[in-house]
Amino acid sequence: MRAAGTEDSIDPCAGSDIASFDVECDVIVVGFGAAGSTAAHAAAEAGADVTVIERTGGPGGAAALAEGIIYLGGGTPIQVACGFEDSTEEMFKFMMAACGPEPDESKISTYCDNSLEHFDWLVARGVPFDPTFCADTSMAPTGVEGLVYSGGEDAYPFDQIARPAPRGHLAKTKRATGWLLMEHLAGAVRDTSATVSLDTHAERLVVTDGRVVGVMARSFGRTVSLRARRGVVLTAGGFVFNDDMLAQYAPPLVRGNYKVGTEGDDGRGIQMAQRVGAAVRNMYAGEVSLPITPPRNLIHGILVNRHGQRFINEDTYMGRVGQAALYTQDAEIYLVVDEESYEPNWMGLAATWVCGSAGELEGEMALPPGSLESTVALYNRHAEDHEDPVFHKHPRWVRPLRPPLGAIDLRLSAAPYAPFTLGGLETTVRGEVLDLGGDPIPGLFAAGRTTAGVCAQGYASGLSIGDSTMFGRFAGATAAGSSE
Amino acid sequence: MRAAGTEDSIDPCAGSDIASFDVECDVIVVGFGAAGSTAAHAAAEAGADVTVIERTGGPGGAAALAEGIIYLGGGTPIQVACGFEDSTEEMFKFMMAACGPEPDESKISTYCDNSLEHFDWLVARGVPFDPTFCADTSMAPTGVEGLVYSGGEDAYPFDQIARPAPRGHLAKTKRATGWLLMEHLAGAVRDTSATVSLDTHAERLVVTDGRVVGVMARSFGRTVSLRARRGVVLTAGGFVFNDDMLAQYAPPLVRGNYKVGTEGDDGRGIQMAQRVGAAVRNMYAGEVSLPITPPRNLIHGILVNRHGQRFINEDTYMGRVGQAALYTQDAEIYLVVDEESYEPNWMGLAATWVCGSAGELEGEMALPPGSLESTVALYNRHAEDHEDPVFHKHPRWVRPLRPPLGAIDLRLSAAPYAPFTLGGLETTVRGEVLDLGGDPIPGLFAAGRTTAGVCAQGYASGLSIGDSTMFGRFAGATAAGSSE
Repeated sequence: MRAAGTEDSIDPCAGSDIASFDVECDVIVVGFGAAGSTAAHAAAEAGADVTVIERTGGPGGAAALAEGIIYLGGGTPIQVACGFEDSTEEMFKFMMAACGPEPDESKISTYCDNSLEHFDWLVARGVPFDPTFCADTSMAPTGVEGLVYSGGEDAYPFDQIARPAPRGHLAKTKRATGWLLMEHLAGAVRDTSATVSLDTHAERLVVTDGRVVGVMARSFGRTVSLRARRGVVLTAGGFVFNDDMLAQYAPPLVRGNYKVGTEGDDGRGIQMAQRVGAAVRNMYAGEVSLPITPPRNLIHGILVNRHGQRFINEDTYMGRVGQAALYTQDAEIYLVVDEESYEPNWMGLAATWVCGSAGELEGEMALPPGSLESTVALYNRHAEDHEDPVFHKHPRWVRPLRPPLGAIDLRLSAAPYAPFTLGGLETTVRGEVLDLGGDPIPGLFAAGRTTAGVCAQGYASGLSIGDSTMFGRFAGATAAGSSE
Repeated sequence: MRAAGTEDSIDPCAGSDIASFDVECDVIVVGFGAAGSTAAHAAAEAGADVTVIERTGGPGGAAALAEGIIYLGGGTPIQVACGFEDSTEEMFKFMMAACGPEPDESKISTYCDNSLEHFDWLVARGVPFDPTFCADTSMAPTGVEGLVYSGGEDAYPFDQIARPAPRGHLAKTKRATGWLLMEHLAGAVRDTSATVSLDTHAERLVVTDGRVVGVMARSFGRTVSLRARRGVVLTAGGFVFNDDMLAQYAPPLVRGNYKVGTEGDDGRGIQMAQRVGAAVRNMYAGEVSLPITPPRNLIHGILVNRHGQRFINEDTYMGRVGQAALYTQDAEIYLVVDEESYEPNWMGLAATWVCGSAGELEGEMALPPGSLESTVALYNRHAEDHEDPVFHKHPRWVRPLRPPLGAIDLRLSAAPYAPFTLGGLETTVRGEVLDLGGDPIPGLFAAGRTTAGVCAQGYASGLSIGDSTMFGRFAGATAAGSSE
């Protein structure tokens, strides 16, 4: 055991070393983001005396900075109002196919079964959803529309596996809606008896006889001890801002140049739990946004790698494109477009090269001679019939590319690769943190990106805030019902 | 703490619970494979009273079943006799490029610096190397040649990064040479004072005051307790035979259909150390052999994926092809050859389809219309000049493919994908096992596939037995010099 304040003080403290605690309550929630706010709310609703500790000066976490999509389905009122049919079964089929390989079936099943109820819960907390659909992006619309396809549900191969339905729900405001979502979720916590302690940074867990009984934290420059009679809920984010952990567990993400999260996503929540024996899962996995759309008109173009080859159907979810690019294409990809499909994208990504033919263009781009020419010729041959038998882009996006052709540089040097981590603590659907032997660690709970959630590697926008807010609720309720 | 013999008894035992140990010695080595044999030898040479425990009925481990290549360089007598120049610096440059992303520079540096000495050490233990070179494979030759290119050193991109030299050394016997290597290494242990206890299966570590002081094992049906005054060295293999661990850490390897190792590669060594606080690294990583050559004549052909595209230079190391196929191509690849380049391979993999043209062939193979035709046309266009600007296969292997064309089915349903795990315990170059905070765990050491070695993901044949035997020696010596 090391003294608090030394360079490495993530190891747990023994409860017996603490004569008296500065704060005593039933449930401590570490972090006031998407998962923390719902955990605190659920624990307080269950009658627990709750203290939320948050290292920054306010609520929100990574969710408040995010686009704020929440993945919900099974026939929500918004889906119905927009004319889409959906069911729990189709949602489950999609997620089992899209969240793999080897996704957590029990979490996905629970997530789908509770999706409609969770929608109602969010609405009851005041989150406003506009009953309109935006077809122009697989991420957040530029308008106030409340529904988008956010996971490639309407694209190959998922449109062959489950009936497509858009499930990306957004709180009603322009562009990034995470802040609005978090206003309502943090507001909901304030309506409970929970105490919120800001500028309070959890550093170590406190353990007595194998049970987690509290937290040591730094608050306004001094160390404070907090006692939790029922449980500690870790909702402290992921580890994308910890390069050592990325190198150890998820080397491809080290190169992400536009990391998604707050500096709080430094992995400390995961590490504190590991130091009391917690198991981790899927630590290699990361979502990588590559914000090519809107406008979706651009996906009439073709994505090519450094060999001048296509590598994915362009109409799939842009996060899937980003993952493929960073994990398997060495982050060297380009979007080739013609005049009809070209508009600068919403972030200002514009064509770097424009040429009269594919052959000229590949020369300018320094792609292998003949490679892009060959790719465009094959694509156009089938595109005359609105077909793409090679990568199965949907016919609605397939037409021949006519010179002049341009290319948008989507290499790491030119475009934002925006990763966050998907791996984390191994938990039950009730939010219990499991030890290396698969048994719950008494007194310890977790949710959000501190945990491995519904996604093993495949992702859809809204699944992180979705599983954070839902499993946050479950973890808070479970902690409230736990006793020494 | 759980009782021994219950379903899950990997948790450590408290030394205070053991009234008297059945065996007492200085150093316990767990596992009698490549790493265990050298660890035991080194510890005994350093004056320690050593006990090796091995769960099977004899020495050898996975190494005895393996091809038995040992990666050594810097100008070994075998390299020199075969007319190849090499240096420690060139070997280091190659390994830093080939073993990434984010390889362990300190381990690679140590490995290269000690390579010549390690060659001499192996020779002094009686391992016979034939001073002849085999050009026909990147794996084990069918003859008794002692040297091969085993990592794609002479292929793109590595031939641009470091001066190519073959570094795959083989003990002199036909085909798989691992058994002969292990005969000599196990024999070397028998020449020391070390005691070997066969049919003795390590189940749990014994810990006193944070120090590993022994092992609980099952031997001939009963539980035995072993006391290690100086240290325990875990050399118990990897985890490729544990599907739960694969799903948790390395999902792509679950599908490997020809797992490389023994049933002892069940991850228990890693798990026992994790239960006393050890950190792991690179758990996602795996080597995947796909034994296409010999004969190397086949690599005049082109490897294509399910989109009818090439995806790698065919002259690179076949393990690199296998990794790319299983990790990034969904294990759906084919080798397309013409008559001049075709011979059935050494394992009997033969052409499934033969057709008069690429267009016909793609139809038979159910590849997308025009895809293979387009790929062959682009390849042949450059091959007329012995060039491959797209994937940079070396000119010596590049000539146009002339109909009739055939294709060898290398999908998972038709070919052996032979993986083993590369991730494991985090260790120092001296073999100390590190805890989650980066500090050595007193009394605990490890080497071989129980650890994360020189390879983060990229691999060359011979690096596993290479780092197992070298870092096994270091771990054994460190353990012998450790004291309570």
